[in-house]
Amino acid sequence: MNYKMILYIVGQILKIVGLFMLLPIFVGFIYGEKHVIPAFGIPFIIIMVISLLLTIKKPKNNSIFSMEGFVSVAAAWITMSAVGAVPFVIAGEIPHYADALFETVSGFTTTGATILTDVESMSKSCMFWRAFTHWLGGMGVLMFVLAIMSSNDSRTMHMMRAECAGPKVGRLVSKSSFSARILYGIYISLTLGEMIMLMLGGVPLYDAVIHACSSAGTGGFSMWGDSIGHYNSVYVEMVVAVFILLFGVNFNLYYFIIVKKYALAFKNEEVKVYFGVVLTATAIITANIYHLSNGFGDALRHSFFMVASTITSAGFSTADVTQWPVFSQTLLLLLMFVGSCAGSTGGGMKVSRIMILVKTGIKELKYIVNPRAVATVKLDGKPVEKDVVRGAGSYFILFMLLMAVSLLLITLNGYSIEESASAVITCMNNIGYGVGRLGPAGTFGGLNSFSKCVLCVDMLLGRLEIYPVILLFAAKKNLRS
Amino acid sequence: MNYKMILYIVGQILKIVGLFMLLPIFVGFIYGEKHVIPAFGIPFIIIMVISLLLTIKKPKNNSIFSMEGFVSVAAAWITMSAVGAVPFVIAGEIPHYADALFETVSGFTTTGATILTDVESMSKSCMFWRAFTHWLGGMGVLMFVLAIMSSNDSRTMHMMRAECAGPKVGRLVSKSSFSARILYGIYISLTLGEMIMLMLGGVPLYDAVIHACSSAGTGGFSMWGDSIGHYNSVYVEMVVAVFILLFGVNFNLYYFIIVKKYALAFKNEEVKVYFGVVLTATAIITANIYHLSNGFGDALRHSFFMVASTITSAGFSTADVTQWPVFSQTLLLLLMFVGSCAGSTGGGMKVSRIMILVKTGIKELKYIVNPRAVATVKLDGKPVEKDVVRGAGSYFILFMLLMAVSLLLITLNGYSIEESASAVITCMNNIGYGVGRLGPAGTFGGLNSFSKCVLCVDMLLGRLEIYPVILLFAAKKNLRS
Repeated sequence: MNYKMILYIVGQILKIVGLFMLLPIFVGFIYGEKHVIPAFGIPFIIIMVISLLLTIKKPKNNSIFSMEGFVSVAAAWITMSAVGAVPFVIAGEIPHYADALFETVSGFTTTGATILTDVESMSKSCMFWRAFTHWLGGMGVLMFVLAIMSSNDSRTMHMMRAECAGPKVGRLVSKSSFSARILYGIYISLTLGEMIMLMLGGVPLYDAVIHACSSAGTGGFSMWGDSIGHYNSVYVEMVVAVFILLFGVNFNLYYFIIVKKYALAFKNEEVKVYFGVVLTATAIITANIYHLSNGFGDALRHSFFMVASTITSAGFSTADVTQWPVFSQTLLLLLMFVGSCAGSTGGGMKVSRIMILVKTGIKELKYIVNPRAVATVKLDGKPVEKDVVRGAGSYFILFMLLMAVSLLLITLNGYSIEESASAVITCMNNIGYGVGRLGPAGTFGGLNSFSKCVLCVDMLLGRLEIYPVILLFAAKKNLRS
Repeated sequence: MNYKMILYIVGQILKIVGLFMLLPIFVGFIYGEKHVIPAFGIPFIIIMVISLLLTIKKPKNNSIFSMEGFVSVAAAWITMSAVGAVPFVIAGEIPHYADALFETVSGFTTTGATILTDVESMSKSCMFWRAFTHWLGGMGVLMFVLAIMSSNDSRTMHMMRAECAGPKVGRLVSKSSFSARILYGIYISLTLGEMIMLMLGGVPLYDAVIHACSSAGTGGFSMWGDSIGHYNSVYVEMVVAVFILLFGVNFNLYYFIIVKKYALAFKNEEVKVYFGVVLTATAIITANIYHLSNGFGDALRHSFFMVASTITSAGFSTADVTQWPVFSQTLLLLLMFVGSCAGSTGGGMKVSRIMILVKTGIKELKYIVNPRAVATVKLDGKPVEKDVVRGAGSYFILFMLLMAVSLLLITLNGYSIEESASAVITCMNNIGYGVGRLGPAGTFGGLNSFSKCVLCVDMLLGRLEIYPVILLFAAKKNLRS
């Protein structure tokens, strides 16, 4: 185990997080919130000292194996959350560290589940930091890619393309660090685009920043107790819905459009299915909630927003879903598992993985009916490699097993089965809202510390996709063998 | 498609079901229930005429392929249920045919979910037929094996051994029709054994027959509204619990014991895990419900009974589980998915399949950590063939996908998500009790006809294990290729 290299990577990531802590200090200055300067300043200084010590000397042996990769990813995400939670405690806005940690893990994993009962009482700088964890989290996978890139040669990227089957992040950064920078550009441009669009609709600058950051990570933290519903504006809702859907698209698509490979961009089967599911689900729910709404337009508006918010795992809300028919609620629940496209900032199991699973199921039935027919699973018209198919299956199995274990642990808290199950589903899929006391209007604050810890692990498992992220790090090893 | 052969097989099975309809007539005579004679007599005559017409001439071309197998199995089980439901309607004890069909499908699939609100008002002969459908259903897979055997040569059995990976029924009938007869012998002996043991505890003959039949199929229909709890006898509860556990054991074990292959019998890993899970779950639930019980003995008694009843998919009850802590309820819910051993009369996903899934998950994690390590999934100390591992994975995927679709359809009924989910889980795993209005004290009678139809399909999917049963029939095809 190359511990030096692990510490070096963690140090690199801490440095990035630390530098970004200057932003809430800046926000504090603008709004005259003096108490936040030590709250963010002290952790900033400590983080910078530690990270400089960790990265002062690049280890000579910079090769890492999958095991080191696994440890680095886990260690980095946990360290980020551990230090990111400190300002909330020092500022006294989330007094208990366990609560602050939950909120920060929920932020970095772009889940959006909150323990706050009165979110609107938070200071502007802490609120900014809270939303900004979503933005950083959304950039998470790319951040790791860069951390590895700066410490390894560009061939790593090439290897990753072959290795990284689950999420398509591999393909999109296959060219070199150049394409990674293009991705950052896309991410920042989309965020700024949403900010501007929101402001054009009359949303104040600060609000626009908060919600654009939350949208970019498809996280779901809002500065209002009633989320996006607060603005009661069709325009604002449509802007948010469209942008979270765009952040849920495989970033390959934008990359291909920018490099003018339109054919590659528009034959992407995953994206087609993704939008197909959104439209179908919106149509079905609109029909199902029509009788409860003020006409067709109202039904369509809420249906579209909630479908977009759920499938992308953003978890914003504009309507009290618990008042909807059980059928619509269940459809939303199933969309949580589907999630958005691979290679996006969204959560869930990912559309392409679900597609492979469904196609595997169909193939298996065909095989049973006619064992001599050689059926292959195809995606984008090309046969999917056996390892990818096996990987999707194993991922699903592991996901469900871990979900079962988590559910059992959460029920020790004494919440109902329905609430407990929703907590696990919403956290492992990084959505942010459950049912009952954990619903859009509720809070995770009532759970005991043990349950919060379990859910923190669930959020990390969901965000890090259990092992594809590990595979990212397994790349280097192939260079040596 | 060899339609003649399909009709011949269906005819054979109808004949068996028809002949067994003489038993409730016999029960009717004993208890002076004259109205049941036409209720069972008329369908008996019609069934016998039809089945004789179907089987009067054995088709010259008696080879069947997997497609024919699939159609035969589905057709036979549906026809059995369709005709088995008629007596309830003619006798006027379940006036609506849709209800009677649900009750009969629930019987033959050994689910035990009931639409009756006042089960105790049923006549003795109808009650007998209801419980007897469980007994016949438990023999189901073997019945199909015999149907195929009588129409094909003994080599089919040998082929089945290789083909039939999911359920281990293949291995246990590998020798010839001789071993199939041994199995019937075991099944009948165990049923008689339970009857005698119950009577030794003071249970009347009729009651003993009913509950022994229900236990044999691990079905769960009882003649009392409060199920086995009615007797309020530790002895009766323990007899039932032990026997349902025995019916949930892989029948291979008994076969090996009878042919004195003790080594093979006692190294069976699935059976060890099965009993291990039962003991562990009993211990955990005992500790969890201790504070609600009249001492340790009382907690142990109810915990053991409910664990046995749930993991074997019998679905009898002695305690109001809804009063238990959510943790215990969730543990029971997870046991529903585990189910009993392959090659038994129990339901669920089967212990061996869950073992393969868990081992696949662990193997995958090992592979991620060290891609060069060649990890294989082992069972009984031997590597499991890749096709079997893939099959278990595909089964799980299909199972979950079908469950999601069913859940969505059931929610159209307007029941809560929790109740709807419990309906689908209990039916696909062939357990028999859900939560809320569908709990042990409740009834499925309040659901609309569409939901009942969906649940009928779910019960059949669960009992026929989606495709392993299809594989049973795919054997003959390999003889030709």
